[in-house]
Amino acid sequence: MQTVGEVGERALIALLTEAARSDGETGDVVIGSGDDAAVLTPTGPVVVSTDTAVDGRHFRFSWSTGRQIGARTVVQSAADISAMGGVLSGVVVSIGCPPQTPVDRLLELNGGIVEQTHRYGARVLGGDLVAAESVVLTVTSIGSLKDLSPVTLAGARPGDVLAVSGPLGAAAGGLAVLSAVEDGADPALLTRYAGLVDDFRLPQPDPAQGPIAAAAGAHAMTDVSDGLVEELVTMSASSGVHLDVTTALVPRADGLDALAADLDVTPYRWVLTGGEDHELLAAFAPDTVPDGWTIVGTVDDGPAGASIDGGAVGDLRGWQSFTDT
Amino acid sequence: MQTVGEVGERALIALLTEAARSDGETGDVVIGSGDDAAVLTPTGPVVVSTDTAVDGRHFRFSWSTGRQIGARTVVQSAADISAMGGVLSGVVVSIGCPPQTPVDRLLELNGGIVEQTHRYGARVLGGDLVAAESVVLTVTSIGSLKDLSPVTLAGARPGDVLAVSGPLGAAAGGLAVLSAVEDGADPALLTRYAGLVDDFRLPQPDPAQGPIAAAAGAHAMTDVSDGLVEELVTMSASSGVHLDVTTALVPRADGLDALAADLDVTPYRWVLTGGEDHELLAAFAPDTVPDGWTIVGTVDDGPAGASIDGGAVGDLRGWQSFTDT
Repeated sequence: MQTVGEVGERALIALLTEAARSDGETGDVVIGSGDDAAVLTPTGPVVVSTDTAVDGRHFRFSWSTGRQIGARTVVQSAADISAMGGVLSGVVVSIGCPPQTPVDRLLELNGGIVEQTHRYGARVLGGDLVAAESVVLTVTSIGSLKDLSPVTLAGARPGDVLAVSGPLGAAAGGLAVLSAVEDGADPALLTRYAGLVDDFRLPQPDPAQGPIAAAAGAHAMTDVSDGLVEELVTMSASSGVHLDVTTALVPRADGLDALAADLDVTPYRWVLTGGEDHELLAAFAPDTVPDGWTIVGTVDDGPAGASIDGGAVGDLRGWQSFTDT
Repeated sequence: MQTVGEVGERALIALLTEAARSDGETGDVVIGSGDDAAVLTPTGPVVVSTDTAVDGRHFRFSWSTGRQIGARTVVQSAADISAMGGVLSGVVVSIGCPPQTPVDRLLELNGGIVEQTHRYGARVLGGDLVAAESVVLTVTSIGSLKDLSPVTLAGARPGDVLAVSGPLGAAAGGLAVLSAVEDGADPALLTRYAGLVDDFRLPQPDPAQGPIAAAAGAHAMTDVSDGLVEELVTMSASSGVHLDVTTALVPRADGLDALAADLDVTPYRWVLTGGEDHELLAAFAPDTVPDGWTIVGTVDDGPAGASIDGGAVGDLRGWQSFTDT
């Protein structure tokens, strides 16, 4: 099996560029990958965000395939475009990997990135490939707002309701299954809760929900990447309002309650602090919540901050790099 | 001295976001860093490119300050915007670093990125900060073409002349000084050739030259990041034409000839294969070369490929990741 060090940067970039070529619609893209830079003609304001995932910290090859890891990085980055109300136009991708990385692994990662980007109706616009100590993927998403106004973190108003675009806790539940089995639990858990494990490996939030919420007039919005409580803390600080969520109202992913019973833990921590589902949290005027969203809390003019069931969020904060593992 | 692991991701992101805040003009930027994504309203088509630099492979902290390393990553990424004829609007930045990295080093890197981005009249639009095995910087540049058409690698035509926007070889010369001194040469070289060393640490191509060349009707353009010969090979393949450069015509950086004499080597290898000056190479109709550019060669309808002084490029190819060090 050939390694990337044996093949070299130029030949690999040619392979990756070829894999990114799309025979389908070009969308906004005038010039795709292969030149100094890509050129697009988006409709309306342009939305930009970037996300990096590092081997051993944000993913493990023992837990996910290369294709899933690549695809998940696109989902994570594109979720930020959706959270402003935007639609993904394209991504640029930086891949760092050790010289001894098998070429097949690189192509799997890239294949997942390309496939997922196409699933969003968007294009891989180019990238960079470098030698690094471990596999590091950076996906920068470029989207457009069409005729919508961007929805920031800062617009939640007293009297609004808080709603989420889908069930939470699936990725955290899936991670709990993988960790438990690694620590000696019955491997049958992997098949019993395959849906949750799949959601951890590759969350599939509906990219249409961001623009739908923006069109419905959402006052503030974010994607739940660091856990619901963490996003509430951020939105309350940005909006200068008090946010409260009622735990029982938060939709729980299918199988989460059964898994919690099997592992003898509460499902609520997964729901409240588990990130990476990339569903959306938004504040709406009460009568404007879109179909399919679930009301989970309220916005009032109490001191800026977040609470859960009226109580302090305490240690229910989300994962962060450097200090958590 | 505090480390990033002691301070943690959230507090650090707040510091970095604060440092990126600009009190000056907002340019195209509607929403800057601090939300899920940034929002801009560029004029004309949007240009996007990304570049990654890894500690020990693309830079060394023993050779450059953190500020220079951060700034250089912006120059490298923005040069690709310029090479299409675009003007930089903003950058998004991903910084990976080990938990034991001093906070001061992170702030220096970020300070260089912010300062250089502002020097381009652009803004830091946001980013990501993650724990990684070594320092890894990814800068994604977003620019706009205003009312110009993009200049690709593919448009060089027989009868065109090739021209460069400035002298070449400075960064390669500066690197040669640092390497020679590290290997025991007289440290006085560092002061005698301080200009070249500075150019290695932080090349400063004029970002106006890309749009100037595009407005002058350049047929093809690229930035010299991997060495002149490498760029000629790429442009000839993309354009399907034969390119020839006359070595004696290529402007050499100040001090390069004297340094070559001191080190008892030829300066031509630095000029022909040294990358990272980020000057521009373009093909123009003969009467349309902009002021300040230097004609270095010709385009003809011979078999697609590149030659130097009419001869084969042989081993005069540029550096590549994985296989070179």
